[in-house]
Amino acid sequence: MRLWDHLKSGNGYKVRLVLAQLAIPYERVELDIERGETRTPEFLAKNPNGRIPVLEYAPGRFLAESNAIAFYLADGTPLLPDDRLGRAEVLQWMFFEQYSHEPYIATSRHWILTGKAAERRALLDAKREPGYAALGVMERRLRDRAFFVGERYSIADVALYAYTHVAHEGGFDLGGFPRVREWLARVAAQPRHVPITAA
Amino acid sequence: MRLWDHLKSGNGYKVRLVLAQLAIPYERVELDIERGETRTPEFLAKNPNGRIPVLEYAPGRFLAESNAIAFYLADGTPLLPDDRLGRAEVLQWMFFEQYSHEPYIATSRHWILTGKAAERRALLDAKREPGYAALGVMERRLRDRAFFVGERYSIADVALYAYTHVAHEGGFDLGGFPRVREWLARVAAQPRHVPITAA
Repeated sequence: MRLWDHLKSGNGYKVRLVLAQLAIPYERVELDIERGETRTPEFLAKNPNGRIPVLEYAPGRFLAESNAIAFYLADGTPLLPDDRLGRAEVLQWMFFEQYSHEPYIATSRHWILTGKAAERRALLDAKREPGYAALGVMERRLRDRAFFVGERYSIADVALYAYTHVAHEGGFDLGGFPRVREWLARVAAQPRHVPITAA
Repeated sequence: MRLWDHLKSGNGYKVRLVLAQLAIPYERVELDIERGETRTPEFLAKNPNGRIPVLEYAPGRFLAESNAIAFYLADGTPLLPDDRLGRAEVLQWMFFEQYSHEPYIATSRHWILTGKAAERRALLDAKREPGYAALGVMERRLRDRAFFVGERYSIADVALYAYTHVAHEGGFDLGGFPRVREWLARVAAQPRHVPITAA
Protein backbone atom coordinates (compact mmCIF):
# COMPACT_ATOMS: atom_id res chain seq x y z
CA MET A 1 0.00 0.00 0.00
CA ARG A 2 1.07 3.58 -0.58
CA LEU A 3 -0.03 6.61 1.46
CA TRP A 4 -0.06 10.19 0.13
CA ASP A 5 0.45 12.13 3.30
CA HIS A 6 1.68 15.22 5.15
CA LEU A 7 3.53 14.56 8.41
CA LYS A 8 2.01 17.44 10.39
CA SER A 9 -1.55 16.48 9.41
CA GLY A 10 -3.66 14.84 12.10
CA ASN A 11 -5.83 13.42 9.33
CA GLY A 12 -2.76 11.74 7.84
CA TYR A 13 -1.70 10.63 11.32
CA LYS A 14 -4.99 8.74 11.84
CA VAL A 15 -4.11 6.51 8.89
CA ARG A 16 -0.43 6.13 9.90
CA LEU A 17 -1.51 5.11 13.41
CA VAL A 18 -4.00 2.50 12.16
CA LEU A 19 -1.46 1.11 9.67
CA ALA A 20 1.15 0.87 12.46
CA GLN A 21 -1.22 -0.77 14.94
CA LEU A 22 -2.36 -3.30 12.34
CA ALA A 23 1.30 -3.91 11.35
CA ILE A 24 0.53 -3.19 7.69
CA PRO A 25 3.67 -2.25 5.72
CA TYR A 26 3.32 0.78 3.44
CA GLU A 27 5.25 3.35 1.47
CA ARG A 28 4.71 6.98 2.46
CA VAL A 29 4.80 9.90 0.00
CA GLU A 30 5.15 13.32 1.69
CA LEU A 31 3.35 16.20 -0.06
CA ASP A 32 3.87 19.90 0.66
CA ILE A 33 0.33 21.21 1.17
CA GLU A 34 1.46 24.84 1.39
CA ARG A 35 3.13 24.57 -2.02
CA GLY A 36 -0.03 23.26 -3.68
CA GLU A 37 1.20 19.71 -4.20
CA THR A 38 -2.30 18.38 -3.45
CA ARG A 39 -3.80 20.54 -6.22
CA THR A 40 -1.78 19.27 -9.19
CA PRO A 41 -3.56 17.43 -12.03
CA GLU A 42 -1.68 14.25 -11.02
CA PHE A 43 -2.91 14.40 -7.45
CA LEU A 44 -6.46 15.47 -8.39
CA ALA A 45 -6.66 12.30 -10.48
CA LYS A 46 -6.16 10.38 -7.21
CA ASN A 47 -8.52 12.53 -5.12
CA PRO A 48 -10.61 15.13 -6.98
CA ASN A 49 -11.13 16.89 -3.62
CA GLY A 50 -7.37 17.68 -3.52
CA ARG A 51 -6.63 16.61 0.04
CA ILE A 52 -4.35 14.17 1.82
CA PRO A 53 -4.46 11.47 3.11
CA VAL A 54 -5.06 9.26 0.09
CA LEU A 55 -4.43 5.52 0.28
CA GLU A 56 -3.48 3.56 -2.82
CA TYR A 57 -4.88 0.27 -1.55
CA ALA A 58 -4.15 -1.53 -4.82
CA PRO A 59 -2.12 -0.36 -7.83
CA GLY A 60 -3.97 2.60 -9.37
CA ARG A 61 -6.92 2.33 -6.92
CA PHE A 62 -7.36 5.16 -4.43
CA LEU A 63 -9.37 5.85 -1.30
CA ALA A 64 -9.65 9.33 0.26
CA GLU A 65 -10.99 10.82 3.52
CA SER A 66 -9.04 9.87 6.65
CA ASN A 67 -11.97 8.34 8.52
CA ALA A 68 -13.13 6.30 5.50
CA ILE A 69 -9.58 4.97 5.06
CA ALA A 70 -9.40 4.11 8.78
CA PHE A 71 -12.75 2.29 8.50
CA TYR A 72 -11.50 0.33 5.48
CA LEU A 73 -8.26 -0.70 7.19
CA ALA A 74 -9.94 -1.57 10.52
CA ASP A 75 -12.87 -3.52 9.02
CA GLY A 76 -12.56 -7.09 10.25
CA THR A 77 -9.97 -6.24 12.95
CA PRO A 78 -10.29 -5.55 16.70
CA LEU A 79 -10.09 -1.80 15.93
CA LEU A 80 -13.70 -1.81 14.64
CA PRO A 81 -16.69 -3.51 16.31
CA ASP A 82 -18.15 -6.28 14.18
CA ASP A 83 -21.79 -5.61 15.07
CA ARG A 84 -24.09 -3.21 13.24
CA LEU A 85 -24.74 -0.94 16.21
CA GLY A 86 -21.09 -0.79 17.26
CA ARG A 87 -20.02 0.21 13.76
CA ALA A 88 -22.68 2.95 13.68
CA GLU A 89 -21.59 4.29 17.08
CA VAL A 90 -17.97 4.43 15.87
CA LEU A 91 -19.18 6.37 12.83
CA GLN A 92 -21.21 8.73 15.02
CA TRP A 93 -18.01 9.81 16.78
CA MET A 94 -16.01 9.96 13.54
CA PHE A 95 -18.61 12.24 11.93
CA PHE A 96 -18.65 14.31 15.14
CA GLU A 97 -14.88 14.62 14.77
CA GLN A 98 -14.99 15.81 11.16
CA TYR A 99 -17.92 18.21 11.58
CA SER A 100 -17.76 19.54 15.16
CA HIS A 101 -14.10 19.14 16.19
CA GLU A 102 -11.67 19.23 13.25
CA PRO A 103 -12.89 22.52 11.65
CA TYR A 104 -12.19 24.34 14.92
CA ILE A 105 -9.29 22.64 16.69
CA ALA A 106 -7.35 21.35 13.68
CA THR A 107 -7.87 24.45 11.58
CA SER A 108 -6.73 26.71 14.46
CA ARG A 109 -3.60 24.57 14.80
CA HIS A 110 -2.95 24.65 11.05
CA TRP A 111 -3.19 28.44 10.87
CA ILE A 112 -0.91 28.86 13.90
CA LEU A 113 1.68 26.35 12.63
CA THR A 114 1.74 27.96 9.17
CA GLY A 115 2.06 31.52 10.48
CA LYS A 116 -1.42 32.70 9.48
CA ALA A 117 -2.69 33.41 13.01
CA ALA A 118 -2.19 37.19 12.89
CA GLU A 119 -3.91 37.78 9.54
CA ARG A 120 -6.83 35.52 10.53
CA ARG A 121 -7.22 36.65 14.13
CA ALA A 122 -11.01 37.25 13.96
CA LEU A 123 -11.67 33.89 12.30
CA LEU A 124 -9.32 32.20 14.77
CA ASP A 125 -11.10 33.79 17.74
CA ALA A 126 -14.46 32.59 16.37
CA LYS A 127 -13.20 28.99 16.49
CA ARG A 128 -12.52 29.01 20.23
CA GLU A 129 -16.10 28.60 21.50
CA PRO A 130 -17.09 25.71 19.18
CA GLY A 131 -13.68 24.08 19.71
CA TYR A 132 -14.11 24.11 23.49
CA ALA A 133 -17.71 22.91 23.03
CA ALA A 134 -16.40 19.85 21.17
CA LEU A 135 -13.95 19.15 24.00
CA GLY A 136 -16.87 19.48 26.43
CA VAL A 137 -18.88 16.88 24.50
CA MET A 138 -15.88 14.53 24.70
CA GLU A 139 -15.43 15.16 28.45
CA ARG A 140 -19.11 14.33 29.03
CA ARG A 141 -18.89 11.14 26.94
CA LEU A 142 -15.81 9.96 28.87
CA ARG A 143 -17.38 10.60 32.30
CA ASP A 144 -18.32 6.96 32.72
CA ARG A 145 -16.29 5.10 30.12
CA ALA A 146 -12.67 4.42 29.17
CA PHE A 147 -13.08 4.66 25.37
CA PHE A 148 -15.62 6.28 23.05
CA VAL A 149 -17.45 3.11 21.95
CA GLY A 150 -18.03 -0.25 23.55
CA GLU A 151 -15.42 -0.05 26.32
CA ARG A 152 -12.71 -0.91 23.81
CA TYR A 153 -10.11 1.07 21.90
CA SER A 154 -11.34 1.60 18.33
CA ILE A 155 -10.86 3.88 15.32
CA ALA A 156 -13.32 6.29 16.99
CA ASP A 157 -10.57 6.91 19.56
CA VAL A 158 -7.93 7.15 16.83
CA ALA A 159 -9.99 9.76 14.95
CA LEU A 160 -10.52 11.93 18.04
CA TYR A 161 -7.01 11.47 19.42
CA ALA A 162 -5.36 12.78 16.25
CA TYR A 163 -6.13 16.47 16.81
CA THR A 164 -7.05 16.42 20.52
CA HIS A 165 -3.56 15.43 21.65
CA VAL A 166 -2.12 18.44 19.80
CA ALA A 167 -4.98 20.81 20.69
CA HIS A 168 -2.51 23.00 22.61
CA GLU A 169 -0.78 23.73 19.30
CA GLY A 170 -4.10 25.26 18.24
CA GLY A 171 -4.28 27.36 21.40
CA PHE A 172 -6.67 25.08 23.31
CA ASP A 173 -6.01 24.39 27.00
CA LEU A 174 -7.05 20.91 28.15
CA GLY A 175 -6.71 21.91 31.84
CA GLY A 176 -10.47 21.87 32.33
CA PHE A 177 -10.93 18.45 30.73
CA PRO A 178 -9.48 15.84 33.13
CA ARG A 179 -11.35 12.87 31.60
CA VAL A 180 -10.06 13.81 28.14
CA ARG A 181 -6.49 13.99 29.47
CA GLU A 182 -6.82 10.56 31.13
CA TRP A 183 -8.20 9.15 27.88
CA LEU A 184 -5.31 10.67 25.86
CA ALA A 185 -2.89 8.78 28.14
CA ARG A 186 -4.87 5.54 27.69
CA VAL A 187 -4.76 5.91 23.90
CA ALA A 188 -1.01 6.67 23.91
CA ALA A 189 -0.46 3.49 25.98
CA GLN A 190 -2.05 1.18 23.39
CA PRO A 191 0.18 -1.46 21.78
CA ARG A 192 2.12 -0.31 18.70
CA HIS A 193 1.23 3.35 19.30
CA VAL A 194 3.30 5.79 17.21
CA PRO A 195 3.60 9.56 17.61
CA ILE A 196 2.25 12.01 15.02
CA THR A 197 5.69 12.68 13.57
CA ALA A 198 6.54 8.99 13.00
CA ALA A 199 6.85 8.26 9.30
CA MET B 1 -38.24 3.89 16.14
CA ARG B 2 -38.49 7.58 16.96
CA LEU B 3 -36.71 10.40 15.10
CA TRP B 4 -35.88 13.78 16.65
CA ASP B 5 -35.92 16.00 13.62
CA HIS B 6 -36.39 19.39 11.98
CA LEU B 7 -38.32 19.38 8.69
CA LYS B 8 -36.16 21.97 6.89
CA SER B 9 -32.94 20.15 7.78
CA GLY B 10 -31.24 18.24 4.98
CA ASN B 11 -29.46 16.20 7.64
CA GLY B 12 -32.84 15.17 9.04
CA TYR B 13 -34.09 14.55 5.50
CA LYS B 14 -31.33 12.00 4.84
CA VAL B 15 -32.70 9.84 7.65
CA ARG B 16 -36.36 10.37 6.64
CA LEU B 17 -35.53 9.37 3.06
CA VAL B 18 -33.70 6.18 4.13
CA LEU B 19 -36.52 5.26 6.54
CA ALA B 20 -39.09 5.79 3.76
CA GLN B 21 -37.13 3.81 1.18
CA LEU B 22 -36.62 0.93 3.58
CA ALA B 23 -40.33 1.11 4.57
CA ILE B 24 -39.45 1.39 8.28
CA PRO B 25 -42.28 2.91 10.32
CA TYR B 26 -41.29 5.63 12.79
CA GLU B 27 -42.58 8.43 14.94
CA ARG B 28 -41.23 11.90 14.17
CA VAL B 29 -40.67 14.60 16.81
CA GLU B 30 -40.22 18.10 15.35
CA LEU B 31 -37.84 20.38 17.24
CA ASP B 32 -37.48 24.14 16.77
CA ILE B 33 -33.74 24.64 16.32
CA GLU B 34 -34.01 28.44 16.34
CA ARG B 35 -35.72 28.33 19.75
CA GLY B 36 -32.95 26.24 21.30
CA GLU B 37 -34.97 23.04 21.59
CA THR B 38 -31.85 21.00 20.73
CA ARG B 39 -29.91 22.58 23.62
CA THR B 40 -32.22 21.63 26.53
CA PRO B 41 -30.91 19.24 29.23
CA GLU B 42 -33.47 16.66 28.05
CA PHE B 43 -32.20 16.74 24.47
CA LEU B 44 -28.51 16.91 25.44
CA ALA B 45 -29.06 13.65 27.34
CA LYS B 46 -29.97 12.12 23.94
CA ASN B 47 -27.16 13.81 21.99
CA PRO B 48 -24.52 15.72 23.99
CA ASN B 49 -23.61 17.54 20.75
CA GLY B 50 -27.08 19.17 20.71
CA ARG B 51 -28.03 18.52 17.10
CA ILE B 52 -30.79 16.78 15.19
CA PRO B 53 -31.29 14.23 13.74
CA VAL B 54 -31.23 11.74 16.60
CA LEU B 55 -32.69 8.26 16.17
CA GLU B 56 -34.09 6.39 19.16
CA TYR B 57 -33.46 2.94 17.67
CA ALA B 58 -34.60 1.15 20.83
CA PRO B 59 -36.35 2.56 23.91
CA GLY B 60 -33.90 4.91 25.61
CA ARG B 61 -31.06 4.14 23.13
CA PHE B 62 -29.97 6.94 20.84
CA LEU B 63 -27.81 7.37 17.75
CA ALA B 64 -26.73 10.78 16.40
CA GLU B 65 -25.06 12.14 13.22
CA SER B 66 -27.15 11.85 10.06
CA ASN B 67 -24.64 9.80 8.07
CA ALA B 68 -24.00 7.38 10.95
CA ILE B 69 -27.75 6.87 11.33
CA ALA B 70 -28.11 6.31 7.57
CA PHE B 71 -25.27 3.75 7.70
CA TYR B 72 -26.94 1.95 10.61
CA LEU B 73 -30.32 1.79 8.85
CA ALA B 74 -28.87 0.78 5.47
CA ASP B 75 -26.47 -1.88 6.81
CA GLY B 76 -27.57 -5.21 5.36
CA THR B 77 -29.89 -3.62 2.76
CA PRO B 78 -29.39 -2.78 -0.96
CA LEU B 79 -28.74 0.87 0.04
CA LEU B 80 -25.23 -0.05 1.31
CA PRO B 81 -22.70 -2.29 -0.48
CA ASP B 82 -21.93 -5.46 1.48
CA ASP B 83 -18.22 -5.57 0.60
CA ARG B 84 -15.45 -3.88 2.56
CA LEU B 85 -14.27 -1.62 -0.26
CA GLY B 86 -17.78 -0.58 -1.28
CA ARG B 87 -18.63 0.43 2.28
CA ALA B 88 -15.39 2.46 2.51
CA GLU B 89 -16.15 4.24 -0.78
CA VAL B 90 -19.64 5.13 0.45
CA LEU B 91 -18.04 6.53 3.61
CA GLN B 92 -15.51 8.50 1.55
CA TRP B 93 -18.37 10.39 -0.10
CA MET B 94 -20.30 10.79 3.14
CA PHE B 95 -17.26 12.31 4.88
CA PHE B 96 -16.73 14.51 1.81
CA GLU B 97 -20.34 15.65 2.23
CA GLN B 98 -19.99 16.56 5.90
CA TYR B 99 -16.58 18.24 5.62
CA SER B 100 -16.40 19.81 2.14
CA HIS B 101 -20.05 20.31 1.11
CA GLU B 102 -22.42 20.77 4.07
CA PRO B 103 -20.48 23.57 5.86
CA TYR B 104 -20.74 25.73 2.72
CA ILE B 105 -23.93 24.84 0.87
CA ALA B 106 -26.15 23.82 3.80
CA THR B 107 -24.95 26.60 6.09
CA SER B 108 -25.52 29.22 3.36
CA ARG B 109 -29.06 27.89 2.92
CA HIS B 110 -29.69 27.87 6.66
CA TRP B 111 -28.60 31.49 7.08
CA ILE B 112 -30.70 32.61 4.10
CA LEU B 113 -33.81 30.67 5.23
CA THR B 114 -33.51 32.03 8.77
CA GLY B 115 -33.02 35.65 7.72
CA LYS B 116 -29.37 35.95 8.75
CA ALA B 117 -27.94 36.59 5.26
CA ALA B 118 -27.58 40.37 5.63
CA GLU B 119 -25.81 40.34 9.00
CA ARG B 120 -23.47 37.54 7.84
CA ARG B 121 -22.77 38.79 4.31
CA ALA B 122 -18.96 38.47 4.48
CA LEU B 123 -19.10 34.95 5.94
CA LEU B 124 -21.76 34.00 3.38
CA ASP B 125 -19.63 35.34 0.51
CA ALA B 126 -16.65 33.32 1.77
CA LYS B 127 -18.69 30.12 1.43
CA ARG B 128 -19.31 30.49 -2.30
CA GLU B 129 -15.92 29.38 -3.63
CA PRO B 130 -15.61 26.20 -1.49
CA GLY B 131 -19.31 25.44 -2.11
CA TYR B 132 -18.84 25.60 -5.87
CA ALA B 133 -15.62 23.60 -5.52
CA ALA B 134 -17.62 20.80 -3.84
CA LEU B 135 -20.14 20.85 -6.70
CA GLY B 136 -17.19 20.66 -9.12
CA VAL B 137 -15.86 17.56 -7.37
CA MET B 138 -19.31 15.97 -7.71
CA GLU B 139 -19.57 16.92 -11.41
CA ARG B 140 -16.18 15.31 -12.06
CA ARG B 141 -17.12 12.12 -10.19
CA LEU B 142 -20.39 11.81 -12.15
CA ARG B 143 -18.70 12.31 -15.55
CA ASP B 144 -18.60 8.57 -16.20
CA ARG B 145 -21.00 7.04 -13.70
CA ALA B 146 -24.69 7.16 -12.76
CA PHE B 147 -24.28 7.07 -8.97
CA PHE B 148 -21.45 7.91 -6.58
CA VAL B 149 -20.41 4.34 -5.70
CA GLY B 150 -20.61 1.02 -7.49
CA GLU B 151 -23.07 2.02 -10.22
CA ARG B 152 -25.93 1.62 -7.77
CA TYR B 153 -28.03 4.01 -5.71
CA SER B 154 -26.72 4.04 -2.13
CA ILE B 155 -26.69 6.16 1.01
CA ALA B 156 -23.74 8.06 -0.53
CA ASP B 157 -26.26 9.45 -3.02
CA VAL B 158 -28.78 10.10 -0.26
CA ALA B 159 -26.21 12.05 1.76
CA LEU B 160 -25.17 14.24 -1.18
CA TYR B 161 -28.70 14.69 -2.56
CA ALA B 162 -30.01 16.14 0.70
CA TYR B 163 -28.42 19.59 0.37
CA THR B 164 -27.49 19.56 -3.34
CA HIS B 165 -31.12 19.45 -4.50
CA VAL B 166 -31.84 22.59 -2.46
CA ALA B 167 -28.50 24.28 -3.21
CA HIS B 168 -30.41 27.11 -4.98
CA GLU B 169 -31.95 28.00 -1.60
CA GLY B 170 -28.37 28.67 -0.47
CA GLY B 171 -27.70 30.88 -3.51
CA PHE B 172 -25.88 28.23 -5.57
CA ASP B 173 -26.65 27.94 -9.30
CA LEU B 174 -26.44 24.39 -10.68
CA GLY B 175 -26.49 25.69 -14.28
CA GLY B 176 -22.84 24.81 -14.82
CA PHE B 177 -23.18 21.29 -13.43
CA PRO B 178 -25.18 19.23 -15.97
CA ARG B 179 -24.06 15.82 -14.64
CA VAL B 180 -25.11 16.81 -11.15
CA ARG B 181 -28.54 17.89 -12.43
CA GLU B 182 -29.01 14.58 -14.30
CA TRP B 183 -28.00 12.70 -11.15
CA LEU B 184 -30.47 14.70 -9.04
CA ALA B 185 -33.24 13.56 -11.40
CA ARG B 186 -32.07 9.93 -11.17
CA VAL B 187 -32.11 10.07 -7.36
CA ALA B 188 -35.57 11.66 -7.30
CA ALA B 189 -36.83 8.84 -9.58
CA GLN B 190 -35.83 6.07 -7.13
CA PRO B 191 -38.61 3.89 -5.66
CA ARG B 192 -40.27 5.27 -2.49
CA HIS B 193 -38.55 8.65 -2.88
CA VAL B 194 -40.04 11.36 -0.65
CA PRO B 195 -39.46 15.13 -0.79
CA ILE B 196 -37.63 17.04 1.94
CA THR B 197 -40.84 18.38 3.47
CA ALA B 198 -42.50 14.95 3.80
CA ALA B 199 -42.97 14.07 7.47
